[in-house]
Amino acid sequence: MTFLKPLLPILGWAPAYSRTDAQSDLVAAVIVTIMLVPQSLAYAMLAGLPPQVGLYASILPLIAYTVFGTSRALAVGPVAVVSLMTAAAAGQVAAPASAEYLTAAITLAFLSGLVLVAMSVLRLGFLANFLSHPVISGFITASGILIAASQLKHLLGIRAEGDTLPQLVTGLVERIGGFNPYTLVIGVAATAFLFWTRKNLKPLLIARGLRPRLADLIAKAGPVAAILVSILAVVGFGLAEKGVKIVGDIPAGLPPFAMPSFDLGLWQQLLLPAVLISLVGFVESVSVAQTLAAKRRQRIVPNQELTALGASNIASALSGGYPVTGGFARSVVNFDAGAETPLAGAFTAVGILAATVFLTPLFRFLPQAVLAATIIVAVLSLVDIAAIRRTWAYSKADFAAMAVTILTVLLVGVEAGITAGVLLSLVLFLWRTSRPHMAIVGLVPGTEHFRNVERHQVLTDPSILTIRVDESLYFANARALEDAIYDRIADQPALKHVVLMCPAVNLIDASALESLEAIAHRLDSAGVGFHLSEVKGPVMDALKRSDFMQHFKGRIFLSQFEAFTTLGGLAR
Amino acid sequence: MTFLKPLLPILGWAPAYSRTDAQSDLVAAVIVTIMLVPQSLAYAMLAGLPPQVGLYASILPLIAYTVFGTSRALAVGPVAVVSLMTAAAAGQVAAPASAEYLTAAITLAFLSGLVLVAMSVLRLGFLANFLSHPVISGFITASGILIAASQLKHLLGIRAEGDTLPQLVTGLVERIGGFNPYTLVIGVAATAFLFWTRKNLKPLLIARGLRPRLADLIAKAGPVAAILVSILAVVGFGLAEKGVKIVGDIPAGLPPFAMPSFDLGLWQQLLLPAVLISLVGFVESVSVAQTLAAKRRQRIVPNQELTALGASNIASALSGGYPVTGGFARSVVNFDAGAETPLAGAFTAVGILAATVFLTPLFRFLPQAVLAATIIVAVLSLVDIAAIRRTWAYSKADFAAMAVTILTVLLVGVEAGITAGVLLSLVLFLWRTSRPHMAIVGLVPGTEHFRNVERHQVLTDPSILTIRVDESLYFANARALEDAIYDRIADQPALKHVVLMCPAVNLIDASALESLEAIAHRLDSAGVGFHLSEVKGPVMDALKRSDFMQHFKGRIFLSQFEAFTTLGGLAR
Repeated sequence: MTFLKPLLPILGWAPAYSRTDAQSDLVAAVIVTIMLVPQSLAYAMLAGLPPQVGLYASILPLIAYTVFGTSRALAVGPVAVVSLMTAAAAGQVAAPASAEYLTAAITLAFLSGLVLVAMSVLRLGFLANFLSHPVISGFITASGILIAASQLKHLLGIRAEGDTLPQLVTGLVERIGGFNPYTLVIGVAATAFLFWTRKNLKPLLIARGLRPRLADLIAKAGPVAAILVSILAVVGFGLAEKGVKIVGDIPAGLPPFAMPSFDLGLWQQLLLPAVLISLVGFVESVSVAQTLAAKRRQRIVPNQELTALGASNIASALSGGYPVTGGFARSVVNFDAGAETPLAGAFTAVGILAATVFLTPLFRFLPQAVLAATIIVAVLSLVDIAAIRRTWAYSKADFAAMAVTILTVLLVGVEAGITAGVLLSLVLFLWRTSRPHMAIVGLVPGTEHFRNVERHQVLTDPSILTIRVDESLYFANARALEDAIYDRIADQPALKHVVLMCPAVNLIDASALESLEAIAHRLDSAGVGFHLSEVKGPVMDALKRSDFMQHFKGRIFLSQFEAFTTLGGLAR
Repeated sequence: MTFLKPLLPILGWAPAYSRTDAQSDLVAAVIVTIMLVPQSLAYAMLAGLPPQVGLYASILPLIAYTVFGTSRALAVGPVAVVSLMTAAAAGQVAAPASAEYLTAAITLAFLSGLVLVAMSVLRLGFLANFLSHPVISGFITASGILIAASQLKHLLGIRAEGDTLPQLVTGLVERIGGFNPYTLVIGVAATAFLFWTRKNLKPLLIARGLRPRLADLIAKAGPVAAILVSILAVVGFGLAEKGVKIVGDIPAGLPPFAMPSFDLGLWQQLLLPAVLISLVGFVESVSVAQTLAAKRRQRIVPNQELTALGASNIASALSGGYPVTGGFARSVVNFDAGAETPLAGAFTAVGILAATVFLTPLFRFLPQAVLAATIIVAVLSLVDIAAIRRTWAYSKADFAAMAVTILTVLLVGVEAGITAGVLLSLVLFLWRTSRPHMAIVGLVPGTEHFRNVERHQVLTDPSILTIRVDESLYFANARALEDAIYDRIADQPALKHVVLMCPAVNLIDASALESLEAIAHRLDSAGVGFHLSEVKGPVMDALKRSDFMQHFKGRIFLSQFEAFTTLGGLAR
């Protein structure tokens, strides 16, 4: 059994499961269920799928995560950004609301599950590191804006299609005259109410004397209240006959057993979206899980999280759901409500299963405008303008990657946006490393330290030129190093020694090695000695494996101070 | 006029042109012409083009380079690797020997010229740096093998087609029974003779008392002798009637005025090959030019070389030629023969023009097998097995990039090979920087220096943990840093301070900044101080632009020694 423990974390915590744990987990499950039912319906609508698909995606995936997951508080299921990405991917291969569209969504979940499991087996979780913070942050902000814009039509009760922000805006402007006044009232009222409960209800309840935790939970139940009131209004005033679009019939019952398509052509079309959904989902999920684990000094195992998310997505696909991941809002609620173990997730699954079997008739008269309002309120909290400002202030390169991500998501689409952001951040990194910072350094008086002559008051010797190169030396910057050294020795007649100070050189690749040989050769024929200092251990090991040391006539000094004194610096 | 000088280097040297220069240049031109005529015919055959196209590509491009080039010895024209790349690209869009094939080759030269000029204007020459030495070296070695294999059919006098090494070998094996004995004798004899002149003739002549330079030139004229003798043999013994394939009629006269195709569909298909040809040609040409310039303490201007090569290719296209670049062998000959200015190239152009007008009837009876022999002997010198061994010994990552380049060129094709090599070397670089080397360091007794505790005898203090990270901190390794620090502080109860020593950190991007904040926060809540030391100037400037410093409770020390003493290291 022991060898199974890393693969099945449930074996680690289940044997010690106590009655207290069960009580905590049950309370948390009830609260999360209440929150998750409307969210599941809403995100299915956002993904362009029938409402029950959102419920299906919130049952088996939770069970799978309970078995395989290492976070004690993460709640998996449909989330806004992944729903948007699902809509974009499925929309490219099938018409909305068609059977093929649903098959595409199911297949996407299946493929995404395979990708995640493969990443786990092949230990490719590090790939997620290539989604930089600014790119992820920009992607989520832009997705939030795009999602909110896509829901406005439901608030107005008009039809307007579009995948990009300009299309959405144009569609809204063209059709706004046909708005339905009842829908608009319901939609605006629901949005305002939800914003209010989110921002103001909790402080108000606390001021009235409620305990903070209870006040928080009541405030979190805002969407449920909005749903119940709006259903009553639709039924009471016969609003459905007055043009207010409602959710309509939802088939009650257990999730069906579903099969993804095994059409290789479809797989080919969906593979890139599946990879992007997997990476985005993994990054979002792991960062939520890590934040929550840190609060209780627990640890999560990122590689096992890949397995768990993969299993969740395969479970989703096989039960008629669509791609899922660990959601921020629901996980925080789960954590705050006191979930102690992943079993809270399994209890939640039972709750949603019960809702799917018994409560679906209730949602028949739920106005789509209210679902749209819950989506808008949820996603606008994803929009992080402060992060854009912070990034701009800190680094123009990071800002560029973020801005390109945001603009491409809004103007072209989610997949293009994240791809452009990742590629641009890699290109900018390579570009920066290909133009390394180099400094002429001198001795800080009274110490053994050497610093940039342009930034510090330091001592130099006209017969010794010390250049510190602040980058690993590799093919992209090898020639820049040659040029820089040749330029700087050009007009120094008294020069006898050039020292390349290498504390920041973590790697010298074969191309850079040839450049060093060329430099040594050129300086030698000009009668100037060429030396290295502060070469790191691993770099030195590599140099010793080459024949560089056999030709090299200079010396390699352990410290720059040693180099400077040995070469007679300031001897006069 | 002055502002034109950088653009037209000819304005720099032409006014000072002397009679002595003219004599030297003329001698060099005669020698290079003798070498270039057979080479031009041979490389045109390699590119799958009519023989005269090779001559055309050796006339106007030389004039263009004379006007725009900054190297005094570079000789441009058809070269082996670019001819192979041309054959691969043109073969993808047209049938060999068709009019469309010739148009594709001309268009490729034109596009390649545009790409080079655009790179010059946009200062994109640095892109060539992304072709690492191992990738270029592997590419040239594999191309040499592929070219030699593709010429064996001419030595045997059989038909056998193929673009990859397995195809070529299979083709040869299948058809070898149909070999032509006369062709085989000529081919093998020519190959053996050429290898002999290349390796043994010069020492022999010197031993007989010739001056080394004259001996060298006579040895270089080997191909001309082989051509003359073989033509005489074909004519004398009527070998053409016995199945020995000959070059056949070559239209005599001036190069025609030609126009590239302006079919956008064709441009789209040829753009990637044109970019690759430009990059490979530029890298080869600049490295030859720099090597020769360094010998006479002259300088070349890489960006102007882009313009000059671009102009040469456009000139080639407009005069019915195909892509050209600066060739290694001919430039060395030009240099050794005493060329003083680029005018030697213009004189060579006149020589080849004369050959094109007057000598082409002579080449009618030249056996293709002799051209194949000159190609084989020339390209086998490109195969550099020692470089493969050296790279393997020095760096497995560089070797991997080289091996993938070689195998992909041989098994898939030249374009795929160079693309795979470049991408793999970038991925390997990113992979390495995403897993930074980190070391726990301690004080070297009696100094102010800190070194890896695993490599040196150093002093440490149980209350202070100093981690030196040997890489810039950016999105790809930010999480690795967090994990490493959390791992290393886990079981150190006496720990009071963690110092991150940053002499090798040349950049902290926004993602890494968030990781640093997370680390500071986590250590703070565990009651451990978090400090930085030896932060570089540019990195410090960036940190000051963020709000990191406002939250940061630790200290930033100029030197690690200061950090260690201030924090009470070894105080007891």
